[in-house]
Amino acid sequence: MAYFDNAATTYPKPDEVYAFMDSFYRMYGGSAGRGEYALANSARGLIDETRRLLQELLHCSAKQVIFTPTATIALNMIIQGVIRGGAKSVYISPFEHNAVTRVLYHFEQLGQITVTELAVSETLEYDLARIRYQFDAVHPDFVIVSHASNVIGLIAPVEDIFALAKKYDAVTLVDMAQTAGLVDLNVGFDTIDFAVFAGHKTLLGPTGLSGFLIAPSILLPPVLFGGTGYDSANQDMPDSLPEKYEMGTINTIGVAGLNAALKWIDRQTVEKLCQLEQLHRIRLLEILRDYDFVTTVGVVEGRKYVGIVSCLIDGISSDSAGSIFSSKGVAVRTGLQCAPRTHKRLGTFPAGTVRFSVGPFTDEKDYAELAAALDYIAENM
Amino acid sequence: MAYFDNAATTYPKPDEVYAFMDSFYRMYGGSAGRGEYALANSARGLIDETRRLLQELLHCSAKQVIFTPTATIALNMIIQGVIRGGAKSVYISPFEHNAVTRVLYHFEQLGQITVTELAVSETLEYDLARIRYQFDAVHPDFVIVSHASNVIGLIAPVEDIFALAKKYDAVTLVDMAQTAGLVDLNVGFDTIDFAVFAGHKTLLGPTGLSGFLIAPSILLPPVLFGGTGYDSANQDMPDSLPEKYEMGTINTIGVAGLNAALKWIDRQTVEKLCQLEQLHRIRLLEILRDYDFVTTVGVVEGRKYVGIVSCLIDGISSDSAGSIFSSKGVAVRTGLQCAPRTHKRLGTFPAGTVRFSVGPFTDEKDYAELAAALDYIAENM
Repeated sequence: MAYFDNAATTYPKPDEVYAFMDSFYRMYGGSAGRGEYALANSARGLIDETRRLLQELLHCSAKQVIFTPTATIALNMIIQGVIRGGAKSVYISPFEHNAVTRVLYHFEQLGQITVTELAVSETLEYDLARIRYQFDAVHPDFVIVSHASNVIGLIAPVEDIFALAKKYDAVTLVDMAQTAGLVDLNVGFDTIDFAVFAGHKTLLGPTGLSGFLIAPSILLPPVLFGGTGYDSANQDMPDSLPEKYEMGTINTIGVAGLNAALKWIDRQTVEKLCQLEQLHRIRLLEILRDYDFVTTVGVVEGRKYVGIVSCLIDGISSDSAGSIFSSKGVAVRTGLQCAPRTHKRLGTFPAGTVRFSVGPFTDEKDYAELAAALDYIAENM
Repeated sequence: MAYFDNAATTYPKPDEVYAFMDSFYRMYGGSAGRGEYALANSARGLIDETRRLLQELLHCSAKQVIFTPTATIALNMIIQGVIRGGAKSVYISPFEHNAVTRVLYHFEQLGQITVTELAVSETLEYDLARIRYQFDAVHPDFVIVSHASNVIGLIAPVEDIFALAKKYDAVTLVDMAQTAGLVDLNVGFDTIDFAVFAGHKTLLGPTGLSGFLIAPSILLPPVLFGGTGYDSANQDMPDSLPEKYEMGTINTIGVAGLNAALKWIDRQTVEKLCQLEQLHRIRLLEILRDYDFVTTVGVVEGRKYVGIVSCLIDGISSDSAGSIFSSKGVAVRTGLQCAPRTHKRLGTFPAGTVRFSVGPFTDEKDYAELAAALDYIAENM
């Protein structure tokens, strides 16, 4: 099978990830960080090392790593917490995922917040002059930007937008689900309050472990409550980090996988992985553009992208196209990809697109299968 | 190492669990349930089968299985949702975990709810007559009971308590973190609205996948929001189950592990696993009672327990005792075990106890190491 759904979950993972998950969990699968015995200490050591590796990768030794089971839960904790803390005027990029927009919609419906899209030009360029004008008109309390769109791969100039947002003392959140470990970003910058990562996507770890970086100065009311194995007599969540936001049993097998993945990324270097991603994207575009019934969406010369390409297939709905690709052994993702606002922006709502997304292990065999599936469509449809 | 911290996380798991997690994730680690291609379908098939196995285990084919990453998140979703739905008068057992009490405390502090402990006699018997009196005095909106205490293993007569609660139309929640797959309970009963399970404890699966059963008739406002890979244009969470409560990427490797664990439990049978647990508990008590400096806590003849025993060691704080056991290769859990209210009830607050908990793979070698550690304490302390 040719796997072009890496934006959902990268697959396969580096072999070290599978191997270390299995060996660590068999050897050290006891309780982690909730006990003083040797087994718990081994797991705790692994957790601590993994936090450090993430801080190094994202250049933010002064920010705290909070592990959450999914990026969606991380986003809920941050967004609900910041709104609970009083944020009313929320700005988002036009490319946000339902993990952001559905959370916001809940509070919009309650009349607690307003949500405004950041200005982006027809050629998909963030219009900083207009954004400044937007911020002047309605001061931002909270600015949320996906580092890269999960539909078209477009990379946002997060530093510029957040520099502007900080002039109004807005809280800032960058969603790095499609970029952590792939597109370098200095999360250590003071202008970035929160950065969310998804362990199982560009970080090449397993499902079940994601998280966020938080500037320790930020006051974030807790949204979820529970046992921390620490300060247990206190019925409030402890004030210390990471305990304040890490309740329940941590997914140690996920930590093991992410740990191995981070070491693999470090050996490859982010720079080389990003270069490889660009080569893959060019290869993908080359193949798709060989077929005149394929129209790529949201691809503009001069913009920066990760290896995600959305298309329309002439005369075939995206869902039907998905079924055809599937029958030919090509895994793609169709429809709205959990990002309806992006599709509204692109004019591809509500039918959506066929999305192809690459990973570091995408190879010529995958591309050959993709081309064969497209040949089949050319001949039969 | 002799592992007596199975109440935190059972360890080891059946070998099939490790083996299937590794093989499934290597083979089918692509996106699950979020795509139409063969790989996604394999993962979706595994998820569906795992739901069915849980329904069979808990005798509740008419209730919906909702997967969550942890039991703590399941408890937050249910408790916060039921309170958002209007519950004001909340009753809990005296043996609840911080995963319950910290959530409730947040709403108590906001003045939104009152929390009352269900009446339990000096001999740790739920006093149904007094509970009826309590319910008459302040009608219950919501009744939460841990099926078994995570500190002393005491099993609650959930059916009787909930039958009483239902006379007042209270919403009922049983926390089966320490019992699912070990102590048989008919979750299909109409008196049970919610049952929470922890995949990595008595269910013998890995960390990272837990969940709850919900009666489809219950209206539970969503607490967390995000992508469902379904009905994506809708900015509310979908109304359908399980999508309404399952946002973000499901932990497929966790599903694989839980799937293998459920099949292992089915082959052993819950009845035999429960018998084995009772034998282990007796063996544990025998050893502990050989030492006159060990005092077991909350052990009453005639009550029912799972294999969790809490102790005090004469003249040694529980934390110091934990360090000694650890140095002798015996893994125990000390302190409050995230259940301060239980310790207040038992008179062991705030220092807590030394907790020993067994699993199906606890063996004579473990008991010999435990006895050797106790001999060491007898000789040296």
